[in-house]
Amino acid sequence: MAPTSEPLTAARILEATEEVLRRHGPAKATVVDVARALGVSHGSVYRHFRTKAALREAVTERWLDRTSASLSGIVAEDGDPEARLRTWFTTLFEAKRHKAGDDPELFATYMVLIGEHSAVVDRHIADLTGQLTTIVEDGVRRGVFASASPAVTARAVFDATGRFHDPCYVRDWEQPGIDDEFEAVVGLVLRGLRV
Amino acid sequence: MAPTSEPLTAARILEATEEVLRRHGPAKATVVDVARALGVSHGSVYRHFRTKAALREAVTERWLDRTSASLSGIVAEDGDPEARLRTWFTTLFEAKRHKAGDDPELFATYMVLIGEHSAVVDRHIADLTGQLTTIVEDGVRRGVFASASPAVTARAVFDATGRFHDPCYVRDWEQPGIDDEFEAVVGLVLRGLRV
Repeated sequence: MAPTSEPLTAARILEATEEVLRRHGPAKATVVDVARALGVSHGSVYRHFRTKAALREAVTERWLDRTSASLSGIVAEDGDPEARLRTWFTTLFEAKRHKAGDDPELFATYMVLIGEHSAVVDRHIADLTGQLTTIVEDGVRRGVFASASPAVTARAVFDATGRFHDPCYVRDWEQPGIDDEFEAVVGLVLRGLRV
Repeated sequence: MAPTSEPLTAARILEATEEVLRRHGPAKATVVDVARALGVSHGSVYRHFRTKAALREAVTERWLDRTSASLSGIVAEDGDPEARLRTWFTTLFEAKRHKAGDDPELFATYMVLIGEHSAVVDRHIADLTGQLTTIVEDGVRRGVFASASPAVTARAVFDATGRFHDPCYVRDWEQPGIDDEFEAVVGLVLRGLRV
């Protein structure tokens, strides 16, 4: 990344950090590498992120937040809750497959970072199950879903579909038949939600 | 294990192999260690298992088969299919938690072996989903489960409950709330199966 005269923002630092992680890998990437890529001193980077761990945590959060953001529009829509839930999981599975398949090295890098920052992962899962809770609540309000506790149900729906979004299954995602298996699980879960 | 005058059977070799793996770890355990533990020559071991890889594969299969065997009785029972399905998953989750919690080092060892022998894992999953298929078929026959294809449904039910038996979730199994989360997923899945 060529040095520019743009002001040094947290967003620019995170962008450069991802690039440095991609190039050097999570074991070797340093704050000095990030500063060099931006043409600034490492002190300037530390003014935005107090420690290397904080910087790595922030870049992990940004990566996960991109996924949450791509799904939030589906939650806000006004259509049939069952169709929205299906679209939500299809979009999530597609997003994860793209992240893993388009740039496997960067994906592996983020898997290392995710292992280091479990609180970020917990927040991400809370974000996603929060989105699902909104759809489940909407379904209950419209009388199409049965749920005594939408938050508990949302977590169950999220857990039941883990094979199609949890990175521990990344090797399954390109297997033949995986789309049919996705359909079978989502179909079963949606049947389980109906009143 | 003290040398004995018992005949050298495959079962005794596998028992000794597990003990050697427990003691030395998967990286260091050798066939010579196994032979020494049994008080026999390594040639005698190779007469039963032609390669070290074959021996490691067989010990992995034995470990997995113990789980399948503990579940097969539930499949053979004559009770309500929904209750049997619940018991089957409860028993599987308990068995996995015990394997992981009672002897974490041996569990970690088997996780390494499982990574080396994916065909054994595929056979194990086929065993387990075969058992589930039998219960689903029984439920369809009795008119309590809806399924156009019991084998597909069985795989979906297995996938949907992965958080409670797939070793990639071992760290979740001792978390507070995990039993409630198990109940929520199994409840959702059973609702999805009902006619």
